[in-house]
Amino acid sequence: MMRLAIIGVGLIGGSLALALRRAKVVDRVVGLGRSAGNMATALDMGVVDHVASDLAEAIGEADVVFLAVPVGQIGGVMERIAPHLPERAILTDAGSTKQDVVGMARTHLGQAFARFVPGHPIAGAELSGVGAAKADLFRGRQVVLTPLAETDPDAVATVRALWEACGARVSEMTPTAHDAAFAAVSHLPHLLAFALVNMLASRPDAETLLSFAGGGFRDFTRIAASSPEMWRDICMANRQALLAEMKGYRSELQFLIDALEKSDAASLLRAFERASRTRNDWAARGRPRSDE
Amino acid sequence: MMRLAIIGVGLIGGSLALALRRAKVVDRVVGLGRSAGNMATALDMGVVDHVASDLAEAIGEADVVFLAVPVGQIGGVMERIAPHLPERAILTDAGSTKQDVVGMARTHLGQAFARFVPGHPIAGAELSGVGAAKADLFRGRQVVLTPLAETDPDAVATVRALWEACGARVSEMTPTAHDAAFAAVSHLPHLLAFALVNMLASRPDAETLLSFAGGGFRDFTRIAASSPEMWRDICMANRQALLAEMKGYRSELQFLIDALEKSDAASLLRAFERASRTRNDWAARGRPRSDE
Repeated sequence: MMRLAIIGVGLIGGSLALALRRAKVVDRVVGLGRSAGNMATALDMGVVDHVASDLAEAIGEADVVFLAVPVGQIGGVMERIAPHLPERAILTDAGSTKQDVVGMARTHLGQAFARFVPGHPIAGAELSGVGAAKADLFRGRQVVLTPLAETDPDAVATVRALWEACGARVSEMTPTAHDAAFAAVSHLPHLLAFALVNMLASRPDAETLLSFAGGGFRDFTRIAASSPEMWRDICMANRQALLAEMKGYRSELQFLIDALEKSDAASLLRAFERASRTRNDWAARGRPRSDE
Repeated sequence: MMRLAIIGVGLIGGSLALALRRAKVVDRVVGLGRSAGNMATALDMGVVDHVASDLAEAIGEADVVFLAVPVGQIGGVMERIAPHLPERAILTDAGSTKQDVVGMARTHLGQAFARFVPGHPIAGAELSGVGAAKADLFRGRQVVLTPLAETDPDAVATVRALWEACGARVSEMTPTAHDAAFAAVSHLPHLLAFALVNMLASRPDAETLLSFAGGGFRDFTRIAASSPEMWRDICMANRQALLAEMKGYRSELQFLIDALEKSDAASLLRAFERASRTRNDWAARGRPRSDE
């Protein structure tokens, strides 16, 4: 049984704590979060046993420290916890970008860098706050770990085992490959959804327009309800890969605009057929294996 | 009790028939569809009482004729049924675009034009075929009717009553206003989803990339599984309004690209905040009121 410290007790951190408690992998959880109300909820829900008053206290007796704060705050947190980390403590995170997090860890963690296992659980984050946490959030979901050459293999094995105890499927890749892949399949769609809703919101008849929006719009824009701060941080952290994807998408859009301008129905049909086939094949392969 | 003819017995036509039967508004349904297998299913499911062998037979004794064929086929069907329409029969459709359908009706229906009530039920269409039909597909959903000055008010009242009997909420607007609104809230998102999936499908590492796609991608791209032929037809029918929306979106995208290029985190945050607030407000107003 391990002692877990959660820095940033929200949807992700809270769900990990609940899952690891249920799996009887951890027997003590100490948490630190931003708002007193959120932390009172975390205590009420049995997510944490104790609310720490500062970072040093939070991690003081931890076997594993889970950083579930927004990516924009991870560097600052690492800098402040580095002097207080127990010698054998393993550190991991849940940031949606990995090259920047690895860079911050290298800068701030010193000796402890070898015990930092960069991680990214792929679970819906359009809800936030510990009140939305649930023990089965990660069941059937993917978690990507991006260990470096210097990373202690035992630390990787421990973090892998924790996620597997939550029911997640764990894979490993380099931070660069991770960031490129997620720019394409996650960060880009988020920006596209934000852009659509923003465009409609700026119309004088926005309310009327939106009253006609149906189930297609609802699903397409679900991710536009995500945390603005979190997505600003992700955009800045993965700026280069995301810019490349945005420009690729701009070309794709221009192709469709040109086809429409020319009334080129055959090109539109070919593009739609390929997309429809790809999307249906993807769904048929059972990904993602579970819904939230 | 009325006799209903369904031309195009698929998800939409089949669901209307099931709902009107359950509401005891129609007591006889004659259907015509493309494939023998689909029509056998329609008979098995009790969607239709009789499968007609041609258009003239299908509409011969109908009080109401429901055209649920793809928009690209509506003109041809109108031309062929016009000589056979019973004198008092009311005609309506389910096309996702309305100016083009009204134009075809004006061209082909002659005297019967006054008894044609253009309609658009807003219900998920990413499934297709009568096998997916269900009596409650339209419950809580919006149906937009776009009658003209020449349209018989009694015909409008009848069609409105039919949809209300299915549990739908009915509103009226002009065909132009309809097409502009749906270019923004429906047709544009569909093209954006097709474009994203198509872009990823063209990558050499498409399969690996897609294996990392999660719940956000799943929902964002759900509409990219829609019928390619139907969406080609919608694009061609609503080309001008859709082009205007595509260009508006291109500008919105360029704004985000510029902000990323300049590392302008504040502009990104403002855009995301507005989008997130708008999307959350929309969901809080309970639209759409029901899921599929």
